[in-house]
Amino acid sequence: MDDQRRLDRFERATDPARVLALSDGVFAIIITLLVLEIHVPELGHGQSLSDAIREVRPSFVAFLISFVVVAIAWAGHRDLFTRIRRTDRGLVWLNMVYMLPLSIIPFGASLLARYNQDPIALRMYGFLLVAITATRLLIWLYATRRPHLLFDPVDAWTQRAGTAIVVIPGLVYAVAILLADTAPSVSLAIYALALVVYFIASIFVRRLAPSESAKEEFT
Amino acid sequence: MDDQRRLDRFERATDPARVLALSDGVFAIIITLLVLEIHVPELGHGQSLSDAIREVRPSFVAFLISFVVVAIAWAGHRDLFTRIRRTDRGLVWLNMVYMLPLSIIPFGASLLARYNQDPIALRMYGFLLVAITATRLLIWLYATRRPHLLFDPVDAWTQRAGTAIVVIPGLVYAVAILLADTAPSVSLAIYALALVVYFIASIFVRRLAPSESAKEEFT
Amino acid sequence: MDDQRRLDRFERATDPARVLALSDGVFAIIITLLVLEIHVPELGHGQSLSDAIREVRPSFVAFLISFVVVAIAWAGHRDLFTRIRRTDRGLVWLNMVYMLPLSIIPFGASLLARYNQDPIALRMYGFLLVAITATRLLIWLYATRRPHLLFDPVDAWTQRAGTAIVVIPGLVYAVAILLADTAPSVSLAIYALALVVYFIASIFVRRLAPSESAKEEFT
Amino acid sequence: MDDQRRLDRFERATDPARVLALSDGVFAIIITLLVLEIHVPELGHGQSLSDAIREVRPSFVAFLISFVVVAIAWAGHRDLFTRIRRTDRGLVWLNMVYMLPLSIIPFGASLLARYNQDPIALRMYGFLLVAITATRLLIWLYATRRPHLLFDPVDAWTQRAGTAIVVIPGLVYAVAILLADTAPSVSLAIYALALVVYFIASIFVRRLAPSESAKEEFT
Repeated sequence: MDDQRRLDRFERATDPARVLALSDGVFAIIITLLVLEIHVPELGHGQSLSDAIREVRPSFVAFLISFVVVAIAWAGHRDLFTRIRRTDRGLVWLNMVYMLPLSIIPFGASLLARYNQDPIALRMYGFLLVAITATRLLIWLYATRRPHLLFDPVDAWTQRAGTAIVVIPGLVYAVAILLADTAPSVSLAIYALALVVYFIASIFVRRLAPSESAKEEFT
Repeated sequence: MDDQRRLDRFERATDPARVLALSDGVFAIIITLLVLEIHVPELGHGQSLSDAIREVRPSFVAFLISFVVVAIAWAGHRDLFTRIRRTDRGLVWLNMVYMLPLSIIPFGASLLARYNQDPIALRMYGFLLVAITATRLLIWLYATRRPHLLFDPVDAWTQRAGTAIVVIPGLVYAVAILLADTAPSVSLAIYALALVVYFIASIFVRRLAPSESAKEEFT
Repeated sequence: MDDQRRLDRFERATDPARVLALSDGVFAIIITLLVLEIHVPELGHGQSLSDAIREVRPSFVAFLISFVVVAIAWAGHRDLFTRIRRTDRGLVWLNMVYMLPLSIIPFGASLLARYNQDPIALRMYGFLLVAITATRLLIWLYATRRPHLLFDPVDAWTQRAGTAIVVIPGLVYAVAILLADTAPSVSLAIYALALVVYFIASIFVRRLAPSESAKEEFT
Repeated sequence: MDDQRRLDRFERATDPARVLALSDGVFAIIITLLVLEIHVPELGHGQSLSDAIREVRPSFVAFLISFVVVAIAWAGHRDLFTRIRRTDRGLVWLNMVYMLPLSIIPFGASLLARYNQDPIALRMYGFLLVAITATRLLIWLYATRRPHLLFDPVDAWTQRAGTAIVVIPGLVYAVAILLADTAPSVSLAIYALALVVYFIASIFVRRLAPSESAKEEFT
């Protein structure tokens, strides 16, 4: 009886439900706030609206890039938590650490919209993306090495695949940071191709899957 | 035992819960952010508050139109997901694609508020509405042709009805885009009647329903 | 079997879960957006921060009033939906109609902050509050007269009590609207006492409760 | 039968689900809105972007401090509600009172960003933090003294530990308020160390835990 009680208490204290509620809220808000960075243009003297709208194009590009970045992060977070049955103190705080660079993305998008050819802005945006992949990797490593937190133990292939699908984009973003000074346009183009990078990493991982069901591990 | 495990894993990986949590969050935020586009007027010299408030009328109209657009989209999304039992990679990403034009609506509302007689603003708002119906249609076609994702297979009538209830408003919005140049006021009026268009489409679909229960398919 | 299927489909189509998810999202966002109307003051020449902060007092008052209004609305919505087992088309759309004046509250708060002695601003804020109580009443009457939507039929006392707890504050706000011209300060004071009005209505209703358990009907 | 009905009604009326939905929404929005206070700098004449970014450093510090404050509050709220099985009128309203200082944090962050050496801004921020801990303590005392609201009664040690983990940071913030005038930098440093203060309080509490399982009471 008393053991049952302690077990029930343990289940409640380690239930990931509220971690997911908070995280989905944060993802939903970031993805929706991004558009506030696109300001409706004021027409200058003799300017038509289509000219004026052309001027907000950089804002729109920064919006689209950031929308995709947050979408990928959400899909990865969802994949991750389909495996996690319980949270502990470490996981709760690591998830918070993960929310930090994510919640700075609207500022990053704003910076990118305003200074999309400036190496410093490009580098800062890249650091945000690397921080998102790094903290995401940290959660993956933390959780998969603690089988008592998972529904099923993670096999060696999935462990490596889950690492690769985060590290490959992370490395590509690191290249974009390095190129920010010498080739800012290339750097921007890399961020714009975040979804392509993710899908290539995802296809690459699936190619190497040892079984049919393993192919469905990552969205 | 091992089969059970794989099945459990499959169930968790295809559970639509988080897709709904994210989507409801996005809907709730968009519908609430819209009001931020209505700015409290500053009184000019010798101006009374009621004069000043008359000046924010276009903002208020754009707010109301956009509120209705998002409400219809949410009701449709809810109808759709009462049928969906499982998500797969395609559905997760299609849902994200659907969120994209939706999350641009606050910018569209702002544009419509500022330039409500300008053909370019009217056309851009129309494109957003068409994009919302088009991506919504895509999810409907994708999901209903994959019975393993549904609670029940969708019969031929419901398939057509679900298409009609999206395509009819989409066509009306396309007409509004075409009229933006020659008759901007008509174009704006069409957007303002989005709810009427939706209800007419909904009544039309129900009229043709083959059974009583089919009448309740769409909110 | 086929009957079971139809019943399951009906249950899913009338489940209030997503209506609640959207509504809680909207409530949470409104209550949190309100603070954005309080702007950090810029110090004028020779002005100390405490002087400057005194200038934002009207914003702070408007924030507090609106926070309380939204809190009462949420508590009432929660009470209402502890009774509702199923939603139908009417209830889904009525709930949307209810969200409309609520989502305008941040604009109303902004107006009240800027023009807290102007009869027009005071009247407009009052109309918003009356619209919230009126649409809330509409949902109550709609739902309680449709026992198939409820967990339990609502008895005559609860029906009247649920009406009174909405109508009493509504009438008080109507008085505030009438006083806006002749006594704007009284009008503002009434809004500031929204919580007191609600608690008096709540205590009044509980006094007349026919049983102990009936006392717990309304938060 | 009738007793069962009354019990079911009671369960629904006291279910904490919507209190959590609203609270998680509010936490998620606050934590995400904070970044909007960091404005992208405009370059002055002959200024490079890295100089300009240095100027937003105070905004960034205020963002980080506030992010941590909200994260600690959320973790504490989650710990609290793993114990709470039912809510009553008092708990619903106390939770709302708790949301009040929390939802003012974005204003506090903005104030701290703009006037981070001004004693008044530092004191006001401190009052917000003290108000958060005080209202949090109120909920703890209210809930733990009403065993019918809890899954399990709270033992004497947990009662004291739950008080200590809130009161210790509260006292530290009170010291920061007192130092705002004479040593504003120390005051700011204390806020910046909120997480350290929380972890020290948490470790201190765990040191004194009477059993292994008690160590896991607080995140």
